Amino acid sequence: MPKSLRDCNVAIVGLGLMGASLCMDLTQGKLCREVRGVARRTDTVLEAFFSGAVDLATNDVHTGVLGADIVILATPVRTIVDMIAEIGPRLWPGALVMDMGSTKAEICAALDQLPMGVQAIGGHPMCGKETAGFGAAEAGLYKNAPWVLSPLARTSPEALNLATELAEAVGARPVVLEATRHDRLVATISHLPFLLASARVHAVAQVGKDDALVWQLAAGGFRDTSRVAASDTRMFMDILMTNRAAVLAQLDNFTQHVAEMRALLADENEAALRAKLMVSQAARAGWKKK
Amino acid sequence: MPKSLRDCNVAIVGLGLMGASLCMDLTQGKLCREVRGVARRTDTVLEAFFSGAVDLATNDVHTGVLGADIVILATPVRTIVDMIAEIGPRLWPGALVMDMGSTKAEICAALDQLPMGVQAIGGHPMCGKETAGFGAAEAGLYKNAPWVLSPLARTSPEALNLATELAEAVGARPVVLEATRHDRLVATISHLPFLLASARVHAVAQVGKDDALVWQLAAGGFRDTSRVAASDTRMFMDILMTNRAAVLAQLDNFTQHVAEMRALLADENEAALRAKLMVSQAARAGWKKK
Repeated sequence: MPKSLRDCNVAIVGLGLMGASLCMDLTQGKLCREVRGVARRTDTVLEAFFSGAVDLATNDVHTGVLGADIVILATPVRTIVDMIAEIGPRLWPGALVMDMGSTKAEICAALDQLPMGVQAIGGHPMCGKETAGFGAAEAGLYKNAPWVLSPLARTSPEALNLATELAEAVGARPVVLEATRHDRLVATISHLPFLLASARVHAVAQVGKDDALVWQLAAGGFRDTSRVAASDTRMFMDILMTNRAAVLAQLDNFTQHVAEMRALLADENEAALRAKLMVSQAARAGWKKK
Repeated sequence: MPKSLRDCNVAIVGLGLMGASLCMDLTQGKLCREVRGVARRTDTVLEAFFSGAVDLATNDVHTGVLGADIVILATPVRTIVDMIAEIGPRLWPGALVMDMGSTKAEICAALDQLPMGVQAIGGHPMCGKETAGFGAAEAGLYKNAPWVLSPLARTSPEALNLATELAEAVGARPVVLEATRHDRLVATISHLPFLLASARVHAVAQVGKDDALVWQLAAGGFRDTSRVAASDTRMFMDILMTNRAAVLAQLDNFTQHVAEMRALLADENEAALRAKLMVSQAARAGWKKK
């Protein structure tokens, strides 16, 4: 493994929003020796190559990772798990495998099964948008985003350093975090909102069956709380299925607060309802983010 | 009542985000003969006057509405209800009373009690932001926003025309809608999101007690689904208490979908969960808004 990102041949597997945006940062900033992109669909391969997002593109993952110093897996979570097993025997000793999956426990367990000569570290850049695919990719996506890095027990300090260098090179803020702890935290801040947004859309659609005007009137409150429901379903199914226990626990945590507020409203207990709303008002208004 | 907005003396009671933004549109566009602002706090009165948002400002509502052709009530809902009773006897015959409250049934019932010589129509411009108060006000706030108008049985066609002219003059799109129907629709698209956002913040705060890192990692999904929780609590308490039945019904509608998804996730019923998520994905992605 080269000591510095500048000397590395980087292969990125999966040229959706996350993978392709990273390619663009690496090529435009000339941050490494070579950027290779691997995509399933041939038109994505061609688009990535001719747009200049990558130096080389292929839809054959074996060709793509051949001789790479760093392999970054940027597909949906369960495809990452399968891909780790598939590419393991084909990597150089000393190559570093990273990933950009939204859940970490299952991926880190799979990374731990790689041949011992291969270095590995889990990762999750915490940014994105509802639109998916190569067409949605953009340079600068990772600027100021937290980029969680989850080292395994076997991860060498050099591998952690290289992963940190890569995250920082694209403007992200590396946060070292154990996989299980990561999964618990993102269950509440990131995975739960998706389920809730989906339920919001279903609830409004139900009203819309009787009164279609609801869609025309829907304003900021609906727009914001339902936005993530437009995200890629396949990606989110992988997230939910690989972080089930934590998502269920956080769903119950949320539901309990909703039930409490429902009871206060039903009982016309204004004082208690106001007190509860004021706590969240102060917490949210005081939360500085960007 | 003058036939045209241009000839009207307009008094706006309540110089928060909604009322003050309307004042700014009216004065900057010279859309009416005179704009008077009424605010409870003396510093708001002074700020409104010296910033040029109004032609005249007072903290005495009786002085403010004296001789006005149009009175627009722009305070929290329950204050509007009280204010209607208070100003009724002091209005010119032929004056038009409007409001900008977020729920309509209780306000329209109060408007119906005005002296018969006074014209009245309920209203709700559907826009806003989480920041409240005069300092958050801005010209152009109503541009392209739906502005619901809820006529009473006693509302004259001339009064409806004048209210429509005012809404259009500031760039809004008037939507005539019966009060109860309005309240049912906004319960799901606007009032419910506030309660859910509050529950979201409480749920994250609960995780944050054990692991404060959750606040640093919170990204777009949390930001969007919790944003409205930062809204003014007093305003929302009035909304919730004057639209209780509809909010409770919509809360149950939402909760039912959440429970269904929870069961599918707990049972690892991937096919059914995916099918449900795909329905909301398509509905949300297809919803064109701004």
